[in-house]
Amino acid sequence: MGFWGIEVKPGKKVSPYDAANALGKLRITQATLGLGSSNERSILQCFGGQKSPIFLCTLLPDKIESCSLDLEFDEDDSVTFSVVGKRSIHLSGYFLEEDDSGE
Amino acid sequence: MGFWGIEVKPGKKVSPYDAANALGKLRITQATLGLGSSNERSILQCFGGQKSPIFLCTLLPDKIESCSLDLEFDEDDSVTFSVVGKRSIHLSGYFLEEDDSGE
Amino acid sequence: MGFWGIEVKPGKKVSPYDAANALGKLRITQATLGLGSSNERSILQCFGGQKSPIFLCTLLPDKIESCSLDLEFDEDDSVTFSVVGKRSIHLSGYFLEEDDSGE
Amino acid sequence: MGFWGIEVKPGKKVSPYDAANALGKLRITQATLGLGSSNERSILQCFGGQKSPIFLCTLLPDKIESCSLDLEFDEDDSVTFSVVGKRSIHLSGYFLEEDDSGE
Amino acid sequence: MGFWGIEVKPGKKVSPYDAANALGKLRITQATLGLGSSNERSILQCFGGQKSPIFLCTLLPDKIESCSLDLEFDEDDSVTFSVVGKRSIHLSGYFLEEDDSGE
Repeated sequence: MGFWGIEVKPGKKVSPYDAANALGKLRITQATLGLGSSNERSILQCFGGQKSPIFLCTLLPDKIESCSLDLEFDEDDSVTFSVVGKRSIHLSGYFLEEDDSGE
Repeated sequence: MGFWGIEVKPGKKVSPYDAANALGKLRITQATLGLGSSNERSILQCFGGQKSPIFLCTLLPDKIESCSLDLEFDEDDSVTFSVVGKRSIHLSGYFLEEDDSGE
Repeated sequence: MGFWGIEVKPGKKVSPYDAANALGKLRITQATLGLGSSNERSILQCFGGQKSPIFLCTLLPDKIESCSLDLEFDEDDSVTFSVVGKRSIHLSGYFLEEDDSGE
Repeated sequence: MGFWGIEVKPGKKVSPYDAANALGKLRITQATLGLGSSNERSILQCFGGQKSPIFLCTLLPDKIESCSLDLEFDEDDSVTFSVVGKRSIHLSGYFLEEDDSGE
Repeated sequence: MGFWGIEVKPGKKVSPYDAANALGKLRITQATLGLGSSNERSILQCFGGQKSPIFLCTLLPDKIESCSLDLEFDEDDSVTFSVVGKRSIHLSGYFLEEDDSGE
């Protein structure tokens, strides 16, 4: 159990477990825009079982630079995240207890 | 259990289970505006037991392009989603555990 | 169990159970502005045990047209909703499982 | 169990249980700006065990007039709320079930 | 159990347990901008096991001055918070029950 965080940089695909020093069920609850001078939107997208990526959130510089999420993953989910745009997106959340399989 | 996502395109009615490689209780937690040049709002609406559709959220280009949801469905819910507007809406969430019937 | 939705129109008081084809514990999680040309705010208010109504949320046309809620009701709650403003507010949520009394 | 709501008016300290016709664990989930002509921000602050008040949320007229909260209190919490600004803030939420101590 | 709050001031690293008169599992649910005349953004960042800090949220004066969070910590998490910017950020939340290890 414990805090989890990762920075998803433009042009790189990352798995939620790349940043993890532990395995188990993971809950991602927050996305925040990284530093940078670009005023373009950054979109967080997720590649999972779907043919096309699914957009998870969009952050707009100087307007909305962070937002809540509520997504759960475990090791069996072979998803990857990437960013469309020039500024990174920081994700944070926490691991759920082992015996907490029932949400 | 696992990540769930779908893109609801304008002019098409979709069921939450159209994109599912699994059945079971589904929690939808996020809506994000798809790509496009239109500046008009996109409204996500749901057709269920009600006579008229219920609006679930409204996304405004360049102002609010994603928002949190918290909706639960199971296979017995014969609901469909559609979009009012020119840009699609991406939905994401996750399946709840089988033995997790109590929320 | 299942999806729940209602449209609260200006000038009419509605109970959350008016739209329900079922009873039981109800969770309301989303409010979205209805269609219309007025640019005035719409306020969702709730009449319960209090002398004065309690405002639950305020939606602003072209700025914030939907928002998250997290309210729970059961049949013993004799509350009614109404809208202050010219445009309706759509509410959505879901019924909680019978044996889910402990949230 | 049931709906809970209170209006916190400027210049007055209130306890969450002032408006309660019941005791027990209380969850506050929503804050909405009250009526008024002032365009100044209203800040909801909480006095608890800390020396200084803690700001819980800030509402901005014509920009963001309601927001989600997620705070839990029980009778042992001797907290009070007050508003910094000229317009009141309406709070709403619900009582958690007695046997729901483990959320 | 009970309300928890802390003010994270610029230039100082704080642990979530610095403000706690109790230990146990802590849930942080809200961030609100402190007083001040600066119009620059304030970013809340968290130092944990990662090499670089993770941004948890960004508050924008006069635009978005508070936001929801959903983060859980316990005493084993050796995290610290700090603020990038000139205005402080107030955090609030509550302790989870001892026997509430599951979630």
